[in-house]
Amino acid sequence: MRVSRKSIEEMHRVRRLNLINGITGIKPANLIGTYSKQYGSNVSIFSSVVHLGSNPPLLGFILRPTGEINRNTYDNIRETGYYTINHVHETIAEKSHYTSAKFDHGESEFERCGLTEEYLYDFSAPFVQESYVKIGMKFKEEVLIEANDTRMIIGEIQEIILPEESMDDKGYVRLDKIFDVGIGGLNNYYSLKRIASYPYARVEEVPPFRN
Amino acid sequence: MRVSRKSIEEMHRVRRLNLINGITGIKPANLIGTYSKQYGSNVSIFSSVVHLGSNPPLLGFILRPTGEINRNTYDNIRETGYYTINHVHETIAEKSHYTSAKFDHGESEFERCGLTEEYLYDFSAPFVQESYVKIGMKFKEEVLIEANDTRMIIGEIQEIILPEESMDDKGYVRLDKIFDVGIGGLNNYYSLKRIASYPYARVEEVPPFRN
Repeated sequence: MRVSRKSIEEMHRVRRLNLINGITGIKPANLIGTYSKQYGSNVSIFSSVVHLGSNPPLLGFILRPTGEINRNTYDNIRETGYYTINHVHETIAEKSHYTSAKFDHGESEFERCGLTEEYLYDFSAPFVQESYVKIGMKFKEEVLIEANDTRMIIGEIQEIILPEESMDDKGYVRLDKIFDVGIGGLNNYYSLKRIASYPYARVEEVPPFRN
Repeated sequence: MRVSRKSIEEMHRVRRLNLINGITGIKPANLIGTYSKQYGSNVSIFSSVVHLGSNPPLLGFILRPTGEINRNTYDNIRETGYYTINHVHETIAEKSHYTSAKFDHGESEFERCGLTEEYLYDFSAPFVQESYVKIGMKFKEEVLIEANDTRMIIGEIQEIILPEESMDDKGYVRLDKIFDVGIGGLNNYYSLKRIASYPYARVEEVPPFRN
């Protein structure tokens, strides 16, 4: 089935949103926690967290044009310079999903969505207690994407908190062991099952594949 | 278990790579296809494709500093202005993984990895025939991330080709029905099972959650 550029443009707005939001494949499910002196804590789900580099350890995520949704997350990061990234697992998927509702300024998504804010190691932004993997981030840089006025927020990892048994002997996080979920589009949640692990790909070790 | 910034820095290089590459959660598995007049076609796996916006339909992906790996992908996109993004499913996961080997310039990853290049609708970059979801992209913009000299390559969707039965009545792609995989870290592959679908989150419809 072919969906041309023209038919994407002519599609109903909601159908286009659903299709394009889901077209990249599976996306990670993370809760971003922030704090504001005036309005208190904030937590919101994001499916756009991306690895940028390991040394220094840098992660990015995408924010829609400011003034729209997730304005609080952006304002709080710029105010304090710190935020947290917390994995979503099966048990908290529904609660996490509802953090995307447009709550009033000052209303706590933590309370309304039944999640618990947690402060660890003098880190100034709130972690999500229920998450198994929690990452403390320091704001580093923002880049503007001119094509549609979105921003990538870039931060450096300061802390990682995770269950010891979720890390294998090579340092990999076994996402299935901590019941991590992925997001498809805007509202489909998927569980994960590990099916394979392949070695680092060296040219001289490529198997004799055929089409 | 706490992994502080200091212990990340002091970690063995490979262990740090594995941990930080896997710390964001599940990542999408996509093959990016390009073409160069001089060297022919190229295909390489990427786990950093990210949705940027639906109208216009924009996707981004992360490229390590040029001069390192995936140099061909970058050069070809800048030469021709076009590229393709193709989903990886269970049957082609191993072949797709090996496209990350550093093949010689002019050596075709398609041939060496047993994947088939396909040209559709006069699109100048090669699609991956075996993929169920194929996206034709036009280069739009690149942004430099100064913190570690990586780039985000931004493109506009021109074409989407997908099986009709993979799209549900709302326009969502059902990733489980096309056996899409996700990547954890650098070399763990996961299959997906849909566990839930939640409605668009409105404040007045948030269930009465408790911690």
